[in-house]
Parts: sequence; structure tokens; C-alpha cells
Amino acid sequence: MKATVFHGARDVRVETVPDPTIKEPADAIVRVVNAAICGSDLWPYRGVAKWPDGSRLGHEFTGIVEATGADVRGVKAGQFVAAPFSYADGSCAFCREHLYTSCEHAGFWGGLDDDGGQGEFVRVPFADATLVAIPDAIRDDAGKRTAALALTDVMGTGYHGAVSAGTKAGGAVVVVGDGAVGLCAVQSARYLGAERIVAVGHHAERLALAKRFGATDVVDSHDPQAQEKIVELTRGGAPSVVEAVGVQSSLDLALGVVRDGGTVAFVGVPAGMETLSFRRLFNGNVALRGALAPVRAYLPELMSALSNGSIDPSPVFTHKLPLERTPDGYKAMDERAAIKVCLEISKP
Amino acid sequence: MKATVFHGARDVRVETVPDPTIKEPADAIVRVVNAAICGSDLWPYRGVAKWPDGSRLGHEFTGIVEATGADVRGVKAGQFVAAPFSYADGSCAFCREHLYTSCEHAGFWGGLDDDGGQGEFVRVPFADATLVAIPDAIRDDAGKRTAALALTDVMGTGYHGAVSAGTKAGGAVVVVGDGAVGLCAVQSARYLGAERIVAVGHHAERLALAKRFGATDVVDSHDPQAQEKIVELTRGGAPSVVEAVGVQSSLDLALGVVRDGGTVAFVGVPAGMETLSFRRLFNGNVALRGALAPVRAYLPELMSALSNGSIDPSPVFTHKLPLERTPDGYKAMDERAAIKVCLEISKP
Repeated sequence: MKATVFHGARDVRVETVPDPTIKEPADAIVRVVNAAICGSDLWPYRGVAKWPDGSRLGHEFTGIVEATGADVRGVKAGQFVAAPFSYADGSCAFCREHLYTSCEHAGFWGGLDDDGGQGEFVRVPFADATLVAIPDAIRDDAGKRTAALALTDVMGTGYHGAVSAGTKAGGAVVVVGDGAVGLCAVQSARYLGAERIVAVGHHAERLALAKRFGATDVVDSHDPQAQEKIVELTRGGAPSVVEAVGVQSSLDLALGVVRDGGTVAFVGVPAGMETLSFRRLFNGNVALRGALAPVRAYLPELMSALSNGSIDPSPVFTHKLPLERTPDGYKAMDERAAIKVCLEISKP
Repeated sequence: MKATVFHGARDVRVETVPDPTIKEPADAIVRVVNAAICGSDLWPYRGVAKWPDGSRLGHEFTGIVEATGADVRGVKAGQFVAAPFSYADGSCAFCREHLYTSCEHAGFWGGLDDDGGQGEFVRVPFADATLVAIPDAIRDDAGKRTAALALTDVMGTGYHGAVSAGTKAGGAVVVVGDGAVGLCAVQSARYLGAERIVAVGHHAERLALAKRFGATDVVDSHDPQAQEKIVELTRGGAPSVVEAVGVQSSLDLALGVVRDGGTVAFVGVPAGMETLSFRRLFNGNVALRGALAPVRAYLPELMSALSNGSIDPSPVFTHKLPLERTPDGYKAMDERAAIKVCLEISKP
């Protein structure tokens, strides 16, 4: 089969690799319909994260079940399914608490040991626990199919951020960061009923999309008065803040705009967060919550919300490309021409 | 009147100072019955915190209302009352949420502008909002009177720590630190119904007290295997951890023993916390919550629990001294001969 393989910084190729096969009775083989390129895929691409040559890429995909192992009961061949960005056994203590990312057998797609999503087929471990069926109403609708792909990572992550920050119906939320996850956090906050949603970023077209997604206000993060403006907009700070960038300056801004007693949830892998004002946390009774999204926990609800039109994150996919043009997709992401790229790999 | 005055590192004197008077219609004057010396009083005492010469000391006291301003309705002369370690206006948005420590008019006893608790009288701003009546059953019982003093800070703080860490009935809690606040957190966890309570410290007699207070297990923090032992005792880590020391090593231990998805609440003023493993928070969906206790919020409930015998933090007071011997009390605290000192200043 064809799949995307990493060969070094800015050297991503679509190559022929071995077809996956059922190895364990709980496995399924999925033919990928759509896969995405993620902001975090740019780390190896840019050489920031040192990945081994030959690593497979991609951790967001939807597809059709092709084959299942002997123990698989929950999905069957022909079914359209979504996979969260990490798999889990579904039976350990953490999985029973729906904290799938802490599963003792948790794994992430790609690398040297697993298939990546950016290829024609994926071997899916713990298929019953990992895969979630996608309703026909979504399968038959091109726009919703694309939106379903967003649920596998960015929308699940944005939603987890909004939930982890304690977003309340009628409440105020600040989302720092206008990347795909930040935009999805905005839409999630609206879905959760927040009344005031302040989106913070510095790309005009992304902030415009934030408004479409439900932001009541947008603030330019490069404005020296950004913090004061946000505090004023939220009448003294927001009880719920989602930090969706992962760097020191955005963490500092988040802590500067959270209301005393509130929560800052950070949903991106911390990259360059070095220091923390413990005094800010202490004096203000503020919580800082790390929030690696257990996307599997949210897929059923978000799939239902997508079906009935309550959410639609599909606009984060600004570019659609066939598998063979995956390297162009990385380039578009790297140059920030694309918010997010959807690869159209096979027919649903 | 006589009051304790700071004159520099290890120079604390009981001196004659002006008697307080009603300045605002919301004020009350309280004749102090009992006051305490706090671990945090040792910072100026040891020269770690630079306090101005002439600062008044003490922020924990109970006493009898002597006089009230024209607007005071909730307390009257002759009433036995407790004061939380900070005062608040009782009417701002934060006070209405019971986050009294974030009150826009919040103030702390002592310093150059306010009376300290370690003296004969205290002018109490916002008396209606600040003071809480102590039932006669406590006033007439010497042991419970001493316990009531603990509610003004260490017990309120320990309780806030246990609450902020998300302590659940039937759950597991780890308390790092065997000072008065840590011990009170242990007792609070028991009061809240935690089933497994692990106390961590390195003073045998304090850990013995932790056991009396409800710890099911005690672990020596100097044991190189401490973390492993706690993780084993809590079957993989505790969902609720109270950090009651305020230094880097205890924060690191707390983050090492919290279960994924859990909360570390730190209840002491951070002193030497420099770094944080953001990855630990992120990967494990762990929350770090600063927890400066809004003691006023808990005083009614804790007073009730003290009345009916559900709690009794009085054993944290290992030493009782008259006001004139306050300097000896500081010395005993400084040398760790005392866990906590109760000053007996006037008759109830």
C-alpha cells in the first residue's frame, strides 16, 4: 500500500510500504477514507522533534473496516468508522474512567511500530475499544464526512479543553490561540452554552473563522493591551481559559486573564513552557490543568452533535489533497497557508 | 495595650502600642482571647521575608467583641468570635462566591496598617462579614476553645486543601507535609470520608499525630523509595494530593504520586517552587490548583463539626504561653520544638 513516510526534516514521502495484516484477535484493518495533517506533525517535519527515519505519519483518520480479528464484536467489515488520535485497550481502570490517554496499553498512530493515518490502510489494535461507528447520515454527506475527521483530534481536543476549563452554560470563556484546536475550542464553548467567548490570536482570517464558530469577541494577541482588553471584555477575567498554543507567552496571557478561582486548561503539547507563577495560582485560587484529550471519550457525543448540526468544525480544513500530494499539504501547513489539510485517500 | 511587634530577624517584642478604636461604621473591636503563631510568621522572624520594623504580628485569633461601629448588625459586644486570617468586605462579587481571599477589599492582619492577632485588642474591619460567632458549647470548653483557634487558619487551610484536591468519600488522599496545615489536611480528609489517607513527612511525633488525625498510612519523605511506596499504597497514585510544604521537592513528590486525572492542591505560600513538569500535567491530565484558603467560607461548617465532635485539631497546639512570652513561642516554632503555639491572652 501507499503511505506517508518521514525521512528527515522537510522530507516527507508517499511510498509503498507493506500492507497491514491482522496480528492480534482484537485488531481490525481499516481502509482510510480521510486523514488529516496536524500541527503536531510539523514538529518532526520542521526538525524540532527528532523522529527516526522511516517513521510513519498521521494520527487522524476515518475509514472503512476491511477486516476484523476473531475477537472483534463492535465493528464489522464495511462499516464507516472514526479513530481517536490514540488507541486504548478499553478495559483498564483508566479506560473505565474514560481517561483513555492514560490507558496502560495506550498507543499513538505512526512511528516505527504502528501504521500512520496518512496512508491507505491502518492496522487498528483494540478495535472494539478504539473505533467509533459513524452514522450513515454523515457518511453520505461530503461536508459532514470532513467534519467527522476533525472529531478524531482537533475537535475532540478543543472540546476537552473547554470541558477541562470548566466551561459553563451562560459563562465566559477565553481561548488563547487561533489554530485549529483553538478554533474548535471556540466552537465547543458555544456548543456548551458559554455566553461570552473571547478568541485570541493574530491571524485575521482565523479570527474571522473564530467569529463564525461562535466567538463573541476577538482580540489580537500582538496588541500590547491584549490582556487588559480581555479582562475588560470578561468583566474582570474569565473563569474558564483554554490555552491552545503551548508556549510561555500564551500561558502567561492565559494566567493574566483567568478570573480568581478559575481554571486554565492547556490542550497543546507544551513546547517552550518553562516557568509558572506559582504565586498567581496560589493567591488567586487558580487551577492549571493539563489536558491531553481522551478523544475516544467524546466521539459518541460529538458525532451525535455533528449529525444534528449542533457543531460543524469542517471549515478548519482549508485544503483538500489526494494522498500523493501529502508533501504539498505539509508545506502548506508549514507556511501557514493552510489551517489544516484534509487528505482524500479513498471513497467512503 | 500590649501587642507583638517585629523589629527585625529574631527580634520580636511585646510592647505597649496604641489601643485600637472604631474608625469605620463597619468596624468592631475585639479583645483577643487566644492567638496563634503560624509557620508563616517565621518568615519575617527568620529574615526570609523583609518586613518593616514596627510591623505588628499574628493573623489567627479568637476573642470577645468589645465594641461595634454604627453599621454592625451581625455581632455584638460580649460575643465570642473567630476571625479568619484575612478579612473581606462580604459584598463584592468574589465574596458572594465565597472566594473571600480575592475580595477587592481583602486585608491581612498585622503589618503597619492593621492590628495583629498577637496582642490584646484588634480593630476588625467589615466585622459583619469577617467575624463568625463561636457557640457557647465551645466557649465553655477549654479544649474546644483551643480547637476553635485552629479553625482561623491551619484547619481552614487544611480543609480547603482537601476540598481543592477533590477529596471524595471513599477515595484516596495523599498529604505531603507534616506541619500543622498538613496534619489538619489529614483530619479534613478523614472528615470528608476519604478511605485511604497517606501522610508524608519526616518527624516521627508529627506522623504519629497524623495517625491520630486519621492517616491510614504514614511515609517518611526522606526515604528514597517514598514515591514508590505511596504509589503502591494508593494502587497507582491518589486522585487527590495536598501539598502542604511549599517547596520544590514536595511539589515534585506530589506530582509523582498523583493519579492521572487527579489534582494536586498546594496550600502553603510557594517558597522556592521554581519549576513545573508541564508534561506531567499534560500527559496525565493532572490539575495543579493553588489554594490560598478563603477560611471565612468554611468557618460555619467547621465550627459546627467542632461542636459535635467530628473534628478536633487542638492537638496541633503543642505549646501554650501567655502573651508576654510570645518571643519564646517564636523560638519554639523556629526550633521545631513546637508544632504550633497557642497564646492565652485573656479570659473568654
